[in-house]
Amino acid sequence: MYRPQIKILDCTIRDGGLINRHIFEDEYVKAVYMALSKAGVDYMEIGYRSSKELYPVKDFGAWKYCDDEKIRQIIDGVESTMKISVMVDAHRVREQTFVPKDKSPVHMIRVATYVRDIDKAIDLIKRVHDLGYETTANIMAVSIENEPDLVEALDELAQSPVDVVYIVDSYGALYCEQIDYLVNLYRQHCPNKELGIHCHNNQQLAFGNTIEGIIRGVNYLDASLYGIGRGAGNCCMELLLGFLKNPKFNIVPVLKVIEQYLIPLRQQIEWGYQIPDMITGILNRHPDFAIKRRASADRDKFAEFYEELLDLLA
Amino acid sequence: MYRPQIKILDCTIRDGGLINRHIFEDEYVKAVYMALSKAGVDYMEIGYRSSKELYPVKDFGAWKYCDDEKIRQIIDGVESTMKISVMVDAHRVREQTFVPKDKSPVHMIRVATYVRDIDKAIDLIKRVHDLGYETTANIMAVSIENEPDLVEALDELAQSPVDVVYIVDSYGALYCEQIDYLVNLYRQHCPNKELGIHCHNNQQLAFGNTIEGIIRGVNYLDASLYGIGRGAGNCCMELLLGFLKNPKFNIVPVLKVIEQYLIPLRQQIEWGYQIPDMITGILNRHPDFAIKRRASADRDKFAEFYEELLDLLA
Repeated sequence: MYRPQIKILDCTIRDGGLINRHIFEDEYVKAVYMALSKAGVDYMEIGYRSSKELYPVKDFGAWKYCDDEKIRQIIDGVESTMKISVMVDAHRVREQTFVPKDKSPVHMIRVATYVRDIDKAIDLIKRVHDLGYETTANIMAVSIENEPDLVEALDELAQSPVDVVYIVDSYGALYCEQIDYLVNLYRQHCPNKELGIHCHNNQQLAFGNTIEGIIRGVNYLDASLYGIGRGAGNCCMELLLGFLKNPKFNIVPVLKVIEQYLIPLRQQIEWGYQIPDMITGILNRHPDFAIKRRASADRDKFAEFYEELLDLLA
Repeated sequence: MYRPQIKILDCTIRDGGLINRHIFEDEYVKAVYMALSKAGVDYMEIGYRSSKELYPVKDFGAWKYCDDEKIRQIIDGVESTMKISVMVDAHRVREQTFVPKDKSPVHMIRVATYVRDIDKAIDLIKRVHDLGYETTANIMAVSIENEPDLVEALDELAQSPVDVVYIVDSYGALYCEQIDYLVNLYRQHCPNKELGIHCHNNQQLAFGNTIEGIIRGVNYLDASLYGIGRGAGNCCMELLLGFLKNPKFNIVPVLKVIEQYLIPLRQQIEWGYQIPDMITGILNRHPDFAIKRRASADRDKFAEFYEELLDLLA
């Protein structure tokens, strides 16, 4: 499958950091940056630009904030054409500042938003678009949104300067026919925008649903090394690179950084398919239910967890 | 997705036994049998009917042979409407015997075959069909067969008494569009047969590809508890039951047996997505390359393994 318009965005540090409060060694972040650059990945999302009022710096690592100066410590001196992205939560915008793009190592600002916060998201998108950044709107938890509300948000985004509108299956609840349906809906209401897809692996469908997106014309594809990410994790970068046949991509640097860094890291922090994550996926519930369960003494009482969650829904 | 014709076949013991020479405790096999019965699963494949000349009994557990008497030790006294299946490799038929179905606890004989052995497979299918058994032909490694040879085999099967013809992605190499293509090809050449699908999880696509099969009208679906099976394993039974909405299925007994038996077993023997399995999947090679690598001291040297395998293909 070779389509030159396809762009791959890696969220190893950004989504992976949700497991450990973004406390990663610089050496690790730099190794990821170098590997992805060599692999031909288009964007690396290096973390969040979060509010230090909401998230005190004593509690989190540098990639919760992604100060421009900190990013430069990683990327300066490395030969790379890869672009840098940072994510901002629309409902958590406080004092964060952005300098004009030509003064920043950041190329793209991705705004994560629930449908209810779409106006906040668009405010921020306009602001950073005017500063010269590429922008995306990542509509989270789309599997639990009402369609009329979603459609209204899409219609607003169509009128905004945003470059890419993302389908985000935060709950890992969707399967291929639902991806098809959403791609059609997004395209109908945002015919002037590129579409993106960000999948979670609760039902081992993150890669399969990303392929479905590719087949339906989605061009911005999120993935992470060895699938690292909160809960069940993301679409695996190694699988996506194995599938895409664009000669600019090279899987070998990705295999190397996985063996050197991700395999040892997986011994320290947990991510990937686990039965509690599968249960929240099939029941279309927030992954936090599963993540809290995995952190408790009852982590392996699956049937009980399933029945408790069913009761909560009743 | 509710289609009454759909039948689920569990291969937890049969495919799982390929990891440990089918040496399972009776207690475990019985717990699996009881859980699957309660879950409404249609068939349990309890093992192979292998030749004791080719596979000496001192080297393997009982589920390599599935003597009728041994099966009765597991199932007698348990209330169940689930049918029992055993598998036979077409190219390894020697002295194995089959009594008439009404004298056996076995309902279905599944014949695993490469395209080149299709005549041996059909010989066996005719023989056991005449004894009253349901039969399937499981054409293995379909991702490396030449289409004219495959078509000839399908045309022969269409003329045989076989009930179900299976698409078997032994290498875990296929993605959804290729599944579509094969379903159409099988249906064109075996319009009078039910179709089945058996996927491997090398690229985390076993469940996604099984869904694709369901959408395209495949009615016989293979899965195993927690995906247990050789190498990357199979489509997870818990995912399939979470997806299918037929009220006869019940996921809770499956969650219970996973927490009680599969999670502890996974501590002792390895299966599931690993990078070497992913590599053989994307390169469309036999899973044994990955399985041998995982058993060596170089188990985590992924980039080297990838490049070695590329060299082998060159």
